Formats: sequence, structure tokens, C-alpha cells
Amino acid sequence: MALLIIGSQWSEEFAAAARALNSGLDIRVWPETGRIEDIRYALAWGPPVGVLKTFPNLELIISVGAGVDHLMKDPELPDVPIVRYVDPDLTNRMVSYLVLHVLFHQRRMCEFLELQRERKWEFRPEPGTHEVRVGLMGLGVMGEATAKALKALGFQLRGWSRSERNLEGVECFAGQGGLDAFLSGTDILVCTLPLTPDTRGIINRDLLSKLSQHGRHQRMPGPVLINAGRGALQIEADILAALDAGELYAASLDVFEVEPLPASSPLWSHPRLIVTPHNAAESTPEAISRYTLRQIRRHQAGEPLENVVDRARGY
Amino acid sequence: MALLIIGSQWSEEFAAAARALNSGLDIRVWPETGRIEDIRYALAWGPPVGVLKTFPNLELIISVGAGVDHLMKDPELPDVPIVRYVDPDLTNRMVSYLVLHVLFHQRRMCEFLELQRERKWEFRPEPGTHEVRVGLMGLGVMGEATAKALKALGFQLRGWSRSERNLEGVECFAGQGGLDAFLSGTDILVCTLPLTPDTRGIINRDLLSKLSQHGRHQRMPGPVLINAGRGALQIEADILAALDAGELYAASLDVFEVEPLPASSPLWSHPRLIVTPHNAAESTPEAISRYTLRQIRRHQAGEPLENVVDRARGY
Repeated sequence: MALLIIGSQWSEEFAAAARALNSGLDIRVWPETGRIEDIRYALAWGPPVGVLKTFPNLELIISVGAGVDHLMKDPELPDVPIVRYVDPDLTNRMVSYLVLHVLFHQRRMCEFLELQRERKWEFRPEPGTHEVRVGLMGLGVMGEATAKALKALGFQLRGWSRSERNLEGVECFAGQGGLDAFLSGTDILVCTLPLTPDTRGIINRDLLSKLSQHGRHQRMPGPVLINAGRGALQIEADILAALDAGELYAASLDVFEVEPLPASSPLWSHPRLIVTPHNAAESTPEAISRYTLRQIRRHQAGEPLENVVDRARGY
Repeated sequence: MALLIIGSQWSEEFAAAARALNSGLDIRVWPETGRIEDIRYALAWGPPVGVLKTFPNLELIISVGAGVDHLMKDPELPDVPIVRYVDPDLTNRMVSYLVLHVLFHQRRMCEFLELQRERKWEFRPEPGTHEVRVGLMGLGVMGEATAKALKALGFQLRGWSRSERNLEGVECFAGQGGLDAFLSGTDILVCTLPLTPDTRGIINRDLLSKLSQHGRHQRMPGPVLINAGRGALQIEADILAALDAGELYAASLDVFEVEPLPASSPLWSHPRLIVTPHNAAESTPEAISRYTLRQIRRHQAGEPLENVVDRARGY
């Protein structure tokens, strides 16, 4: 019985970590599959389209990320359970990324870094955390943990999700009908949505124009966007246009329409835009391999799998 | 009866906010003192030496900041109670500043910002919060609130103070005898110490060389310094030398030996150093004036004052 690791640039690291756990499984890294009949399990990140269906005895797919859009791109994806990677380590990293970037813009750090480059000692009015309304698009495990962390720092929290949610201390909005009301009271928009046909391109000029402009009358100089979900959620030309028009004050992007972000992209050099290389919630090979082997063990023992994907919803 | 506001660059803003609160007090801004016999109370930030003793009926001094070194510089400071400004708004701002800069360096943002300027998409291993030991120098109201916020994000916490403290979830060290042990297990040193004769120049090359170098064997690339206490706690030439020698990985400084930081200072342009203009815990004029009037009311009613300074300790 073999586990095939496929697609990720870190496949060899995952394999080394999995072998170190001495599970008794045969660990193989694509394209060195060996006998294809041996492959029962796959740990995958964006596998080449059509490859997974070539393993006749495949029983289970584990997604390297919390999102599974990279798998759903394969129209011939075998009809076996898919487990997405949800782990305290991954969640903790996402929370630290999002809290960092919320605080960064609350404290107007794009401006202070620019002042530092110019060797200028200058004050700027900064809002207190209690004056800033953070709007979370996506209230899954990551959104919920982020809400809790930001709440503890004093921020006002609101959230938007596809279906109704009820989180303590978070003003919740749901569905297409609740979107405008959600946006109009949001100073800092934090996106951790999954990529599905419904959410593709959702972060566009129209959406950004509906964010609160109220902040500029207070100490917050305008709305902020933070996207750590998926690049295909956003229209990058629209984000740049909104920044240049002053509809957006600043943004932090961890994900992009094309990754790696091409060196020619104008996003790199915008003074109010922070670009990070899809590292918000990169987890360690050890944590991913431990999780993968735990799911395989549960599957073998006939126990329920964790974080099984609902293909109809797309996450 | 009059309140004199003196020394701060924001004195007029404090006066406007105090007048808006309709306390019935006469609010004056130095040097327009009017009849000096009227002055019963002073709200002060670095008043000119010798001025406060010229008010024969002065009963109470309120310090604009949580630290009072700016008052203690005056050898002829009148012998009346001094109240330092401690306020949820001030504490909250300090916490947001310190959490921001701890996360900034945990996530290696100096490097990611440099990569962005170079249009380079590159990963760097980043430690999880649970792999990073934050050491708080100073366990007053601000240190304690910061410990709580960082703990909630998963960091390991340790603290150092002049006298023994006991904070839940924080490994506590005290006094000169505990300093080396405190430093040797600290990856990110966060300083909110008051400036006293004992702490002047405490952040020097010797102290920095004792910070944990353990981190560099893990994912944290080396120790970090964050100083939001007072500039005279630090020897800036030593910080630069430690950065250049690789004993320090990075630093964030909000306070400086000379403020405003002179344009000629080499601190401005060091690639692993973040400079902010002593804005970590600037509070709003409204909050400061509200606090000031509350203390005056308590004083008039014979109730105990809050946050009274012990002149022997110096804070």
C-alpha cells in the first residue's frame, strides 16, 4: 500500500517528513509512482489534470491546503473522499498573518515606512482598535479564529458567509442579500473565502466601491483590503484602480491571479500595497504529513474522516 | 481655580478637549498663565525646568505619559502628588503597537518588504508563534496587557521586572540576578521599562549579546529588539553594531536618544530596523483630558488619586 505525494513544490519535504513518522506506508513522489495499483492514497496540491484518475485503487485524496479549488480544476477527479488540510498549525499561521496585516494598516504602516525612507519624523492620526470595523469574508475555521484574536485586541467585528452563521461578538451577515450591508460598515475587509464558481472574481471594483468611506471622517484614512484566500477571488486591475482612485486606502495581498506573481506586475511597486508570496498559512511538512497519516489511519480503521469536502459546495 | 497645560506640542488640543468637557475649571495654556496664584493643577509633558515651582498654589501634577522621566529632569519639581497617565486607550494603543511589531518580525517582514521592492517571489521559513519566546522587559500595566494579547496568539512568554512579579502563563524573572537567565531564553525582546537612573542605557551591546541565539537553529533567524519605552534606555550605536554583527536579526524602535530622530541618523536607513516617531501609545486629547479632569475631581473630593508616582522608585 502506497501514499503518492503529487503536485506541490515541497513534495520531497512532505515525503521525508512522512517517512520519518514510520507509518509502514510506502511513500512515493510523483512522477516516480512505481506500480500504479499500489497507490491507495494521494497527498496533492494542484496535480496535473487527469493524473489522479490513472490510479485504479485510489481510495482517498488529501488536499495540501484548506482550499480544494486546485483539485476541482480536474474534471476527471476520481470519485473518492477528499479531505482538506485543517490543522491548528495552519490556522494559527493564518491568524498571525491576518492580525499582523490588520494592525499594520490600522497603524498606517505603509505611510510610516515611506516616512522612514524619507527620514521624516511626522505624526499621523491613528484610530484606536475600537474605532476600526473589521469585516471577515468567510467564517470557516480560519475566519472564526481570526475573529476571536481581533476581538481580543479591541476591534469591532462583522462577518459575511454564504449561509447564516452566529458567532459571539461578531455582527453576522449572510448570502447575496446581506453583502451590501456587510460592506458598507466595513473599514478593513479580510478575505479567507474558498474559491468556488460563486466566489470567483468577487473582489472587484463594484464590491470595493461599497466598502465604508466613513473611516475617512474618523482617524482611519479609508478602507483596506486583505486577501489571503485565493488569487482568483480578486480582479487585480480593479484593486489597483480602486487604490489609485482613493476608494481603497491600502491593501495586503498574499494570493494572486497568477502565482508566482510575475515580475512585470504593477502590484509589486504600489506604495500602498503589501505583496507576500502566498505564505500566510504555509504549514510545516511535519504537520502536513502527520495530518495525512492520521486521516489514512482513520480511513483504514473505518473511522470518520476529518474535514471531508462537500463537492457540491466546493469546499 | 485653573488647570495649566504645559510642555506638550498638543497643549492646545488638550485645552480644547478639556474645555469641551465643561468642568467649570479655567483652562490655560503655558506661557499664557494669567494670575499665577490661580494655578492649582498642571497637565505637563517635559515642562521647562524650574517653571512648575513658580506656581505657589499648585496642588497636583498630571503627566501626559505613563513615564514621568520628563518631569523628574526638573530638580526643582514642586513636592506635590504626581499622577501618571494610565488609561485603557493608552494601554490599548501600546498593545496594538507591540503585537504588530512582534508579528512583523516573527513573519520576517523586513525581508519580505525587501523582496517586494526587488519584485522577487521567494519563500523564507517562518516560525510558528508557539516556537517564538517573547521576553517582556517591564511588567507594568502595559507589559501585562501585552503579555495577555501575545499569549492568546500562541507565543511563549517570559517577563523581567525590578521586583518579583507573578503573571499567569508568563515565566517571570526579577532584578539584576534574574536578567541573564531571562535574556538567554528570549527571541524577541520587548521593552516598556520606565526610565530611571537604574535603567538608563540598559539596552546596550552587552545586554543584546546575551539574547538567545537558539532561534537561528530553528526557523527564527535571530533575536529581535522592540523598544517602546524611552529612548534613553538604549545605546543606539550598540544596536546598530549588534545588527551589523548579526547578534540582532532585526529591531523596531519607537523611541530615541534624541527626539525627533535627526535626519542624519544612520538608524533611518538600516534594512532590518523599523523607525516610528514615538507614536506607539499616543493617546487622544479627549482621553487625556477626561483622565486629567477625573483626577482633579478625585483630588477635590478627597478621594484617592489613581496611578500616583513613587518618587523614590522614579515611576
